[in-house]
Amino acid sequence: MADIGIVETKYFTFAEPPNELLLHCGEKLGPITIAYETYGQLNSEKNNAVLIAHALSGDAHAAGFHKKQNKPGWWNDLIGPGKAFDTNKYFVICSNVLGGCKGSTGPSSISPETNKPYALDFPLISMWDIVRCQKQLIDSFGITKLLSVAGGSMGGMQVLAWLVLFPEKIRSAIPIATAFRHSPQQIAFNEVGRQAIMADSHWKAGNYYAGSHPVKGLALARMIGHITYMSDESMAEKFGRLRMVNSEPFKFTADFEVEGYLKYRGDNFVQRFDANSYLYITEAMDNFDALEKGSLEKLLHGHKVKVLVMAFKSDWLYPSYQSKEIIKACKLSGVEASYCEINSTYGHDAFLLETEEETHLITHFLKKVFYKYEVTGNYGA
Amino acid sequence: MADIGIVETKYFTFAEPPNELLLHCGEKLGPITIAYETYGQLNSEKNNAVLIAHALSGDAHAAGFHKKQNKPGWWNDLIGPGKAFDTNKYFVICSNVLGGCKGSTGPSSISPETNKPYALDFPLISMWDIVRCQKQLIDSFGITKLLSVAGGSMGGMQVLAWLVLFPEKIRSAIPIATAFRHSPQQIAFNEVGRQAIMADSHWKAGNYYAGSHPVKGLALARMIGHITYMSDESMAEKFGRLRMVNSEPFKFTADFEVEGYLKYRGDNFVQRFDANSYLYITEAMDNFDALEKGSLEKLLHGHKVKVLVMAFKSDWLYPSYQSKEIIKACKLSGVEASYCEINSTYGHDAFLLETEEETHLITHFLKKVFYKYEVTGNYGA
Repeated sequence: MADIGIVETKYFTFAEPPNELLLHCGEKLGPITIAYETYGQLNSEKNNAVLIAHALSGDAHAAGFHKKQNKPGWWNDLIGPGKAFDTNKYFVICSNVLGGCKGSTGPSSISPETNKPYALDFPLISMWDIVRCQKQLIDSFGITKLLSVAGGSMGGMQVLAWLVLFPEKIRSAIPIATAFRHSPQQIAFNEVGRQAIMADSHWKAGNYYAGSHPVKGLALARMIGHITYMSDESMAEKFGRLRMVNSEPFKFTADFEVEGYLKYRGDNFVQRFDANSYLYITEAMDNFDALEKGSLEKLLHGHKVKVLVMAFKSDWLYPSYQSKEIIKACKLSGVEASYCEINSTYGHDAFLLETEEETHLITHFLKKVFYKYEVTGNYGA
Repeated sequence: MADIGIVETKYFTFAEPPNELLLHCGEKLGPITIAYETYGQLNSEKNNAVLIAHALSGDAHAAGFHKKQNKPGWWNDLIGPGKAFDTNKYFVICSNVLGGCKGSTGPSSISPETNKPYALDFPLISMWDIVRCQKQLIDSFGITKLLSVAGGSMGGMQVLAWLVLFPEKIRSAIPIATAFRHSPQQIAFNEVGRQAIMADSHWKAGNYYAGSHPVKGLALARMIGHITYMSDESMAEKFGRLRMVNSEPFKFTADFEVEGYLKYRGDNFVQRFDANSYLYITEAMDNFDALEKGSLEKLLHGHKVKVLVMAFKSDWLYPSYQSKEIIKACKLSGVEASYCEINSTYGHDAFLLETEEETHLITHFLKKVFYKYEVTGNYGA
């Protein structure tokens, strides 16, 4: 299938007044800029918009190619002409999360008060705040109701936050490989990553922007992450106990291929990600509880939202029982919801890799949701 | 049941000549001291000796109490009068591994050549070397054949190394929650721990003994370890999403109880363990492959060893399929072997905690093995 071609990241700064957001933690933050990309065309009824939410290390560049780069966006297999999120039919929007480091306001942004990077002066953000920023972006397009909001992992948490916070603003939701809230094991892995960053002598309580960055700590956090993104089986298939040929003559060289892979992934990550953003975003994930405001039944009362939940068999980081909790809550609250557990060995990474199965499921689901628009001419509420 | 009471660690230094060991890596090491404890009495036939092998962070103090300490040895529930390893009947020996830091020669020991700690001049050690040292210790007692050798996790790897290296020296073997070799996932978790230590600016390529130790890196390694020792379920039962009351007013305070637990475990560990030992021992685990010298059938040809293999249902670090590989290899080589998968939610920690079920299984197994001694008066070979 054809790709979208060249795309570029755009920037949206909240219109004033007020150009600030009252955050979940009680602090105000502003001005806020949100980096985003769009693919396809918004139709005149403005009822064909799909919001894509990215995962922890993702960004607004979900599909197509940036000029002079040969690596496409992170969900390019799902977004484009004729693909699951068909840009011939839908207007697809993806934005970088608040707190991120890929164009949206975050701890590495310049604070208007000090003219220096916020660092740890940046307020604690929540998944609710991230979604409120997306809502402002959607409003700026004049979109009153999204056809769908979709995402995997932390992207799925944002989908759930939309479902709970703005059920009247979405026609459907596609949470993939995600959870209402983190289990202590999920918190624990994030916590070790945070501790690795904060243990790095270059972290300096977050004030590292003028000097060396805590690259070793951030690389460690990423290495831990990558172990949890794969499955025992996929690691065995990919690496086995193979050793690399040109390993250095040092006692503790990372000479198993799996060690080399993790090292490569860690070293690579620090070139494109900010350590403080890693702290803020993982903290937002751990603190998130989609149902802290009440049951889904109460929250969705009177709103007709269709939900498609997906999980992956070998995903032990976001095990399928968490997805089943979502589907159960949907069913209990009378929401039309479908569940599919995809048989994959890829572990949590499957939401990025099992695009063929995802394509089938999403294509049909979206068609059905969109068809109602076309026939009834309203949002079916 | 009664405890053993007060015990003390003893030290055995290889008799000379030669007082050195030719290691698996090709280097020679000496003199070598091995710290050990014994419980019960060696009978006159010297056929009632059981060797206990400890796990990564364990030591020779497996049972009873050290003077003025109120915490018993790490397997106190299994070793003592009337317990699984019944000290009224058996002579139980446990030694600290070569490369360790609890009395046996390791990287923190003083090198006779430099009169300074070996640090990274300490040669790479293997599970085979660890077991060869235990063999020297056993020889020093005049024991020609052990009634059994038992251990969990890395202790189980030593059991397998005994089975392969000295099948004529053991009457039975009890490998618990272990594997013939590490999977890439197991290597990966160890590797991240090693990288955490080596990323600590206090590590200084291992030469930290005169100054500050790499405590942050070692604590991180231990935190990662602890996540893998528990199960998703046991963490959920123990911590849920509870928060600690007196958390500091800092954005990234470890305020979830699970975070506090990991921090406590990490901080605690650095007071009793040497970071370089952690590197050497985990490297020995990752490099170990019990069957690198051939099939079990070939290795055990002509030797009658009884094997009891145990695994735990929620242990995802050493999943039961690895124990099943051991039992399969035993059966294929004609070894009398039993397998039991214990239904536990404790994860890998279960080998230290599910002592009631272990007691039943080990008691009957050992009785059967020992009974043959008593009746036939020989080793049944």
